Order: sequence, then structure tokens, then C-alpha cells
Amino acid sequence: MKDIKIFAPATVANVSCGFDAMGFALDNLGDTMIFRKNKDRSIRINKIEGAKLPFDIYKNASGYVAKKMLVDAEANFGIDIEIYKKYKPGSGLGSSAASSSGTAFAINELLDRKYTQLELVKYAMLGEEVACGSQIADNVAAALYGGFILVRSYSPLDIISIPTPAELYVTVIHPQIMVKTLDGRNVLPKKVKLKKAIKQWANLGGLVSGLCLNDYDLIARSIEDVIAEPVRKLFIPHFDLVKESVTDCGGLAAGISGSGPSIFALSKGQEQAQKVKEAMNKVYQDKGIEYNLYVSKIGMEGVRTL
Amino acid sequence: MKDIKIFAPATVANVSCGFDAMGFALDNLGDTMIFRKNKDRSIRINKIEGAKLPFDIYKNASGYVAKKMLVDAEANFGIDIEIYKKYKPGSGLGSSAASSSGTAFAINELLDRKYTQLELVKYAMLGEEVACGSQIADNVAAALYGGFILVRSYSPLDIISIPTPAELYVTVIHPQIMVKTLDGRNVLPKKVKLKKAIKQWANLGGLVSGLCLNDYDLIARSIEDVIAEPVRKLFIPHFDLVKESVTDCGGLAAGISGSGPSIFALSKGQEQAQKVKEAMNKVYQDKGIEYNLYVSKIGMEGVRTL
Repeated sequence: MKDIKIFAPATVANVSCGFDAMGFALDNLGDTMIFRKNKDRSIRINKIEGAKLPFDIYKNASGYVAKKMLVDAEANFGIDIEIYKKYKPGSGLGSSAASSSGTAFAINELLDRKYTQLELVKYAMLGEEVACGSQIADNVAAALYGGFILVRSYSPLDIISIPTPAELYVTVIHPQIMVKTLDGRNVLPKKVKLKKAIKQWANLGGLVSGLCLNDYDLIARSIEDVIAEPVRKLFIPHFDLVKESVTDCGGLAAGISGSGPSIFALSKGQEQAQKVKEAMNKVYQDKGIEYNLYVSKIGMEGVRTL
Repeated sequence: MKDIKIFAPATVANVSCGFDAMGFALDNLGDTMIFRKNKDRSIRINKIEGAKLPFDIYKNASGYVAKKMLVDAEANFGIDIEIYKKYKPGSGLGSSAASSSGTAFAINELLDRKYTQLELVKYAMLGEEVACGSQIADNVAAALYGGFILVRSYSPLDIISIPTPAELYVTVIHPQIMVKTLDGRNVLPKKVKLKKAIKQWANLGGLVSGLCLNDYDLIARSIEDVIAEPVRKLFIPHFDLVKESVTDCGGLAAGISGSGPSIFALSKGQEQAQKVKEAMNKVYQDKGIEYNLYVSKIGMEGVRTL
């Protein structure tokens, strides 16, 4: 194989009660990337469309992951990279994770699948560090595994694929405002009341069992974040109104995607997810803030060859 | 129906990372109770064998639950109760929960199943309050539902049945020392580090998915309690030695049952559970502390008519 073109999905991390532990991939929203082997063993980013990102491979998530993987594999080739960003960075939809996991997947293909899926997650986490400052696994694992994932442990790294009900859809609204991941981190409490923590893990148990048991109603009841959402929602204009509009029109539940500003909502079936989109649109249409709306099935495949 | 004889199982609550949220029932360890209708509409406890418990129905979990259910149902009969405790109260194996849930089940049968299962949990929780001072749901829900349960929420009460792998067995060692539930509560921190809380809920997600997916290895990896066990194990002599002995001989994992002093260990298959029993025995045999050992399948049926 001399070159490969791949799709790297947008991802929702945190998933309310699954804060810092769960994530899932979208099916139809994500970046396209092209990787071409070269003989002079250099790593070059030749094209970035759709976002302003550094071409320096030590500052670019994709470039850095490619470099690290090729060096570790003692590869006898280099890589030319083209990145086509199809949604905006800073959305809370794992933009850097798409680059990192897409690169890890593609380079592995070009290396005749030298690495395991878990190793790919570890490489992609290096890209997250370059882009966001820390080796967070939830977005990249969701992008690489597809469907819902649980980061059970970081040391050792343990990623669990959680079964995903067939009719589960997600609607996302991305208000075009800036929320830096770092700001989102800084508002989090260092300590939480034990009672609240118990509530959170009881809900996470409910969410995981709801997903495993195809119980949409249980999923809806369990998606509640008593720890991060109450402080982070303050960064997101009209969050409560959007959330209310989701359940009012029959959506299952809503929460903050990643550290925001995007808000995700789960629905049973595509038709319902469209209704949620309209409801979100109604909330935002006259507020003077630009926004994008997306509807997608949960992406069961994750990163894939095009 | 004029009378009924029932079996009310012992239960393990907390289940490590499932602290204050999960529980499961044993299959072959539990109390026997007999309930006989009477015409003079009085509630009487006529016999208690195997433990020193109050006969005053307002101080006895069983008597109190019976009274409340019959008054609420405006029943035209009273009840004579006989209680045969087959394991010791104060063990951490839900002794009062067996009485409370056994009573709720039996009275409901005598009332021609007037109440739903969730209502029975609520009545049994009143018995827990009489016996332990608070309306804790995990033991009584495990006893009534059987198998593994999750108390997702108290308000409104939401009990989730978690699928249980067919070959899952539990071994329990009950060192005959006193640990009051209240003491166990008092050592718990009011606040916990967010990082620890995240670790706990990531493990709980792992445990729930391990149970749902029949993944014994995942169950083993996930049974880790970073919040209650580190402080509560100090009340239980040789806890670390027992825990080590469990995994050394091939058991899946071990933890504190309820607030102790019993230690539970899960195993795949009865043979392995017996090996764990021998390993636990070896740790305790020369320590000068009396103890009981039990091996049981996970009790899928819960409280049942004999």
C-alpha cells in the first residue's frame, strides 16, 4: 500500500455522568485525511483545509503521531499528509482527536497493521498531548473503536467497547463561541461530595446497562451529570433552554459534548433526532450567535478507509 | 392463601466500586420465615431462632414492615411471624435486609400480590430504617430482585437488574468480630478527590459492562474500590492477606461485603469458588478469630416461597 485516504469521525466525550470516562463516535461528521508514502523518509504536512493549524510536525497532532509511529517502527519511508477538516476545532467534538486517531489508523495500515488497536490509542493520545496539553483517551478511543467506549483505566490503559443500541442517534448543536479546554478544566472542583460522586456513578452504571440492554428509557434517565455540567454549562449560552427543548420534543437526554461548547442530545430513531435538531434550532435562531447543527447515527465503525 | 414459608437470601452490598449503588443475592445462604394469617388483626412475632432480636414489632424490621403493609392495604387479617435466622446479624451480609425483604415478599403474597416489586423494595427499606437507622435500598433490592442490582436513583427510586453471568460464584468469609454499620459510615470521607471519583465510576462502568457482556476478566479488573475500602478495611483483620489469597489462587477479585466485616470474593465456577474458600481458610485458621465460610452461586431468584 502506497497511500491511503481515511475518514476520522467527530466524537462526543464525557457523555454527562460518564465524565472523563466515556465517549462515542459520530457516523457522518468527521475529517478526511490523505497519507502518501515518500522515499526521502521525511514527514510533511502538505495541505490543511478547513482550519488554521500548524504545519510544523512537532506542533501538529497528526504530524507528531506520524513521526512517532514511523520512528518506533524503524520504517524505511516517510509520509506526506493532507488534512481536510470538515468541522471546526474548539467545538468540543474531538477535532484534534480526529486528526490524531485518523493518523494512527492510517499509518498503521501503511505499516501493514503492525500495531494493536490499544497501541493505536496510545499513539493517538500523544497527538492529544500536542494539541491539548494532556494525553486524554476518551475522544481518540471513541474515534478508533467506534460506538460507545469506556476508558476504564489509564494505568494500565483499558478501553472497553460498550454495545450500542441500533436506533441510537445523536443531534449536536455547536454554538460558534470559544471555550478553551483549559478554562473548562479550571472550573472543575478538585474535590466533590461523596454523595454527589455516588449519584454520578450510579447514573453511569445506569447508562452502561441501558446501552448494553437496549433500554432507551434507562439511557434517558441515566444521562445526568451532577459534577461537571453544573459549572461548565455557564460557559454555554442558553444551555438549559436547549436541554429543555430536547426532552420537551421527545429526545432522550442532552449534555455537554467534551468540555463544550457543543451540546449533544441522544434520540431513538432518526426522525426523533431531526425533531431535536429543529427544537435546538428554534432556541438558537434569534439569539445572535452563529451555530451549526448535526444529526448522525452513532458511528459504529470509527476511523475507516475511504 | 392462609400461610406462607419463605427463604430470604443473604446479600452482598456495595460490591467495591459499586459502593452504595450495587448489590447481589446469594443462592443458598439466607433466613427462613413463616407467616400465618390471624383473624384478630394483630401482628405478632412468635418465634425468633438464631439471633437475639426484639419481639416488639415497632423495633423489629419484619414486624414493622408487616404492620405498615397491612395497615396501608386495610387488610382484614393480622399476621403471626416466625423468624429462623440462619446466619449472624452484623455480618455485613444484609441480615436485617433478609428479614425486611422476606417480610415484604410474604405479606404481598398473602395480599394476593397487591404491590409491585418496586413498592416491595420501598416497604422493605422501612425495615432497614428500623434495624439500621436509614432507608438503604441495595441489600433489600438485591434480596427481592435476585442477581445483581443497581440502585440508580433514590428519588425517584430506580432499581436496575443487571444481567449475571451464569458461572459466577461467590465465596464469603465472615470473621466473627463486631463492626457497627455506623462506625463504618463515620470513617468515610465527606468529600473525595475528583480524580478518585472518576476512577471509581470508570471501574463501576467496567463492572456493569463485564456483567452484561459475560466478561469475567473485565469483572475481575473492575472490582476495585478506591474510596471506601482503603478506610474500612482497617476494621477487618487480615483483609489484605485474604484479598491477596483470593487472586493468588485464581479467584476473580475480592472486596468488603456491605460495611464488613465479611469479605466476598467472586469466582468463575464452583470449583474455583471452593479453592478460594480453602485459601481464605488458610489465612484465618491460626489467627485466633472465629469465622464462617460460605460458597454460593449468585442467587438469581431472590426471596422465594419454600
